[in-house]
Amino acid sequence: MDRLQQQMQFILEVDKLKKITRQTFLADGSRKEDDADHSWHLALMCALLFEHSNKEVDVLKTIKMVLIHDIVEIDAGDTYAYDNAGNETKRQREEAAADRIFNLLPQDQAEEMRSLWEEFEAAQTPEAKFANTLDKVQPLMLNDASGGKSWREHGIKEEQVRNRNKTTAEGSTELWEYVDGLIRKNVEKGNLIGS
Amino acid sequence: MDRLQQQMQFILEVDKLKKITRQTFLADGSRKEDDADHSWHLALMCALLFEHSNKEVDVLKTIKMVLIHDIVEIDAGDTYAYDNAGNETKRQREEAAADRIFNLLPQDQAEEMRSLWEEFEAAQTPEAKFANTLDKVQPLMLNDASGGKSWREHGIKEEQVRNRNKTTAEGSTELWEYVDGLIRKNVEKGNLIGS
Repeated sequence: MDRLQQQMQFILEVDKLKKITRQTFLADGSRKEDDADHSWHLALMCALLFEHSNKEVDVLKTIKMVLIHDIVEIDAGDTYAYDNAGNETKRQREEAAADRIFNLLPQDQAEEMRSLWEEFEAAQTPEAKFANTLDKVQPLMLNDASGGKSWREHGIKEEQVRNRNKTTAEGSTELWEYVDGLIRKNVEKGNLIGS
Repeated sequence: MDRLQQQMQFILEVDKLKKITRQTFLADGSRKEDDADHSWHLALMCALLFEHSNKEVDVLKTIKMVLIHDIVEIDAGDTYAYDNAGNETKRQREEAAADRIFNLLPQDQAEEMRSLWEEFEAAQTPEAKFANTLDKVQPLMLNDASGGKSWREHGIKEEQVRNRNKTTAEGSTELWEYVDGLIRKNVEKGNLIGS
């Protein structure tokens, strides 16, 4: 198979990301967003908010990272942030998915995408820290906009959100301060169960 | 209002892009895709296919362009490619939308995003030509995958698709040859009405 055919096969396969539904509602609460919606939102946030990263980041690399960070969920499914049992088996399911999906690409691009995904998961480089911060800020912003619809649906506690956001400040102190304010506001409003 | 607040106001506003439904079905035909799904797909295609551009492109700039190319549809709506009446008033509706939406951003970023959108629309630079090519290739790929579901729904003719793709080869000869093959195949299958 030629290079373009391999690339197009991958591009068609990842269309399935649009079918993975997240737990986060759109801002207007009308429906839950899908993984492709979410990944688009993160990529645009990265293009606009990179100046708030604690450390200078390679914007193109960070955007690529957020574009592909959830692709493994095509096979592994979306594991809700507060699903403890699901999160125990998550890594294994996602590794198998990465093996299958990224390897549809020509080898050099399969390696590049796999490496970006591993880097995102390890959350050690400036790009991965900032990408992970965006991945936490975006659902907080949407939950706030929808009146905490997803938090209320699942009876989420402030403590769980704070625990989930332990490293959000590592990517961007400014963005952490922004979402910290949203958390406080939603505890006051009763959208999150206060600790 | 401080800079981050302005940026977040824009980022929240463009969540509405997820509510704009296109005429193109997902590859499996289960539903029509939304504009954010589509924009994510183009951004990823750009990251993987830029080597097929006829001219060298700035990949980051091209990705930003495709991420924001449909944002005006939040106000102006999605005008189906083969809706002649709608396409007559499209430019005016989209200009007004651009004035409102991009200006939610801090001035420097409002200007950058507006300029990227104008550049995409004018389709003259290598980046804009390649972005426009991707914007044509993606729905052709999905229509082919879904058995021409959207074409059949609207009774689309080969001639209309070829007319719509008059400049697709300008961004990438290789991608044009790829979709030209898809058009021929779908005429043979009866998914497109042959000329």
